[in-house]
Amino acid sequence: MTPRKDLLDIASLTDEEIQFVLDNAVPFKDLFKRSVKKVPTLKGQTVLPLFYEASTRTRSSFEVAATRLSADIIQFDVDSSSVTKGESVLDTVETLEAMKVDYIVVRHKQSGIPNLIARNTRASVINAGDGFHAHPTQALLDAFTIKETVSSVIGRKVVIVGDIKHSRVARSTSLILRRLGMKVAYLAPGSLMPRDVPDEVKVLNTWDELWAWQPEIIYLLRVQMERQREPFFPSVSEYHKVYGMTDDRLARARAEGLYVMHPGPVNRGVELTDNVMTYERSLINQQVENGIAVRMSVLYWLRPGAGVEA
Amino acid sequence: MTPRKDLLDIASLTDEEIQFVLDNAVPFKDLFKRSVKKVPTLKGQTVLPLFYEASTRTRSSFEVAATRLSADIIQFDVDSSSVTKGESVLDTVETLEAMKVDYIVVRHKQSGIPNLIARNTRASVINAGDGFHAHPTQALLDAFTIKETVSSVIGRKVVIVGDIKHSRVARSTSLILRRLGMKVAYLAPGSLMPRDVPDEVKVLNTWDELWAWQPEIIYLLRVQMERQREPFFPSVSEYHKVYGMTDDRLARARAEGLYVMHPGPVNRGVELTDNVMTYERSLINQQVENGIAVRMSVLYWLRPGAGVEA
Amino acid sequence: MTPRKDLLDIASLTDEEIQFVLDNAVPFKDLFKRSVKKVPTLKGQTVLPLFYEASTRTRSSFEVAATRLSADIIQFDVDSSSVTKGESVLDTVETLEAMKVDYIVVRHKQSGIPNLIARNTRASVINAGDGFHAHPTQALLDAFTIKETVSSVIGRKVVIVGDIKHSRVARSTSLILRRLGMKVAYLAPGSLMPRDVPDEVKVLNTWDELWAWQPEIIYLLRVQMERQREPFFPSVSEYHKVYGMTDDRLARARAEGLYVMHPGPVNRGVELTDNVMTYERSLINQQVENGIAVRMSVLYWLRPGAGVEA
Repeated sequence: MTPRKDLLDIASLTDEEIQFVLDNAVPFKDLFKRSVKKVPTLKGQTVLPLFYEASTRTRSSFEVAATRLSADIIQFDVDSSSVTKGESVLDTVETLEAMKVDYIVVRHKQSGIPNLIARNTRASVINAGDGFHAHPTQALLDAFTIKETVSSVIGRKVVIVGDIKHSRVARSTSLILRRLGMKVAYLAPGSLMPRDVPDEVKVLNTWDELWAWQPEIIYLLRVQMERQREPFFPSVSEYHKVYGMTDDRLARARAEGLYVMHPGPVNRGVELTDNVMTYERSLINQQVENGIAVRMSVLYWLRPGAGVEA
Repeated sequence: MTPRKDLLDIASLTDEEIQFVLDNAVPFKDLFKRSVKKVPTLKGQTVLPLFYEASTRTRSSFEVAATRLSADIIQFDVDSSSVTKGESVLDTVETLEAMKVDYIVVRHKQSGIPNLIARNTRASVINAGDGFHAHPTQALLDAFTIKETVSSVIGRKVVIVGDIKHSRVARSTSLILRRLGMKVAYLAPGSLMPRDVPDEVKVLNTWDELWAWQPEIIYLLRVQMERQREPFFPSVSEYHKVYGMTDDRLARARAEGLYVMHPGPVNRGVELTDNVMTYERSLINQQVENGIAVRMSVLYWLRPGAGVEA
Repeated sequence: MTPRKDLLDIASLTDEEIQFVLDNAVPFKDLFKRSVKKVPTLKGQTVLPLFYEASTRTRSSFEVAATRLSADIIQFDVDSSSVTKGESVLDTVETLEAMKVDYIVVRHKQSGIPNLIARNTRASVINAGDGFHAHPTQALLDAFTIKETVSSVIGRKVVIVGDIKHSRVARSTSLILRRLGMKVAYLAPGSLMPRDVPDEVKVLNTWDELWAWQPEIIYLLRVQMERQREPFFPSVSEYHKVYGMTDDRLARARAEGLYVMHPGPVNRGVELTDNVMTYERSLINQQVENGIAVRMSVLYWLRPGAGVEA
């Protein structure tokens, strides 16, 4: 396996690399059963979260992962100062490069910023979500979660429901699942369905079509209420009624033994009813726990000097 | 002593538990005389401050306490992201539960939120102040401070002055002092005196009545100027004149050898004159130092696996 | 060398102390070539950044320096809580004193605040920039950068260009360079030239005069666009044309082999053209890297008990 510096998207990963990250997440997750959940693997390495877009969950997940590997976290508050002084992203990266941090974990509302940063630093850059482009660690944790839940992933059917068009989660997760041999469908309002759906992805228009397709996993996307200026659907309650996982649909999912996933944080009463949160086949909390294990595995995979040892 | 998971209020503590926390704070405080003030007790454990209400002092006190026990602190910024996305407290707790943090230190402006959280996580929950309800670590540090200052606490008289009605500090501290055998009085404007003052608490209306009661310790509350929409007293200078510790009252306190306490941060010129800050019997800074020792003791008491060892 | 508690400005340092800090930064910088850039020197010591004025770069530089010395960093958010509650600086310092932190790193928009704090705490206080007064660690890193770049510093000519009047960087850096035997000149618009320029500093009015003076290093100051209410110059593009390092001036600097420095963050198109960022004799990134080494050296120099050992 050729050593790699950055994790920018799923598309550029080899099958071997995907397998390496998923396989190594297993022993890291085993660690969580112990009272001390920490290993000295990255002692003395520094991880800098560079979050231009707020995200408590993803950021904390990376910080917990880094902490459990004994890395040091350098806080760098992009909101409060230099950016308001008009400093450009590249000037910030030059500074971080001169500071010689080992990892930069980037989130930015503009697609491609992590790639731009990666080209301008020797640090390992991990994309924690960029615009509508990619969210590779989310995809890896989703894949890991499905793999540990079902006996074999080949041919499994996963339907992704919601605002596919503006979702980096849909893009990255859909891709990794297909790479692993699963079948993927999209259910979205017409205004939120991308124009360039890949041929091998099934397009569904209604929940009736969804049931007819017989998925084993329903992946609900978050409605990005704060992102959309122009309304893509009439109202929140209308969305819930037509595209959300209502109590009725949950009852049917339960009857058919289907799993439910969601990248979090959820909008109760919008993309799902409250009762999904206690549904016995909801994998949502498992996704959160696996997020830490998978991110530990990614940090381990990209560790400085990994190429030399291999 | 039955092992306990959470510290939510003083009322639910046994005498033995109160004693345990106060006793164990002593060796932790001794540590502060050394150049390296750190012990490896909680190495590999994670502490997550979940502050829905800002508090630099209490939060820092907990973070210093956790650091001195070698725990890792996970920063989780509730203001900036998921909460503005409308995520509910319980959804956040589910996430933290899945992340398997060991301690959650909660502050919330609504009473009962720490209890709600504690019921929904295996982590140890420590209430760092909830609404008008409780602030148990403040009460414990106040009790510790008095115990180390006076030879014996039984029968000692403490008067609490200020906005008793809206004060979780008054509620928790008043309770612990009475539990330890002290006598407590309240002095407050009529509008800021609670209706349900316990029978054993003496109600005072003026400083003349206060002097007549002959307290040994005067505990001044902070005027929560940012909390009150409706004015409970005519003006700040009027409050100072009628209920504050003025220079004249400080002179009398000094003449009588009384101690002064305050939970911080102080409003100079409101609940107290500047000169209290340099008063030789002010215990205010001692309270801050003891806050760290007592919080270390609380973290130690609630440590994972403490029940197994005992 | 008499042990010292604080670093408040350059003026109060002895030559021996300046030399000590610069000399000891060398081995710390060597550390950065290693995979693990960390030493246990300040294990168990606590560093508290007290930033009343936002500064991502300087704050991160101190945090990385402290982390590489294995110190613990205590986050203390002055913006979000106690200050908005009207707590005064001195009350905060009393709290920090009671918490027994070992180092306080202060930035404040008002001159003299670090001195005030230093007098009221046993902690080592490091001035990270106060008003128009001083920025001693910037001066030390600037001196270190020049020393490692040119063979001998005696008689070297450095011109500082920009808003000298409101610049604590100009004040501190100009002083240390002269202390080390260099020659300093100022180029500034009349409205931004201080009235009390020291006799030994050459005053220049135009870039023609600058070239005629034959400097070896051009030190560009940041235009503090957010600080100035009243316009000291007609417009940003006018400033760039008359006082900035334009492409033409960069071409001449290149032809003459001159070095360019800047404290960061830069305003591209204002005090310098974009192309300075890739200029082969720009020392800007070297300044950032050296900032960490010099700040490690300062923390080491002021370490608790340093006097006892010496």
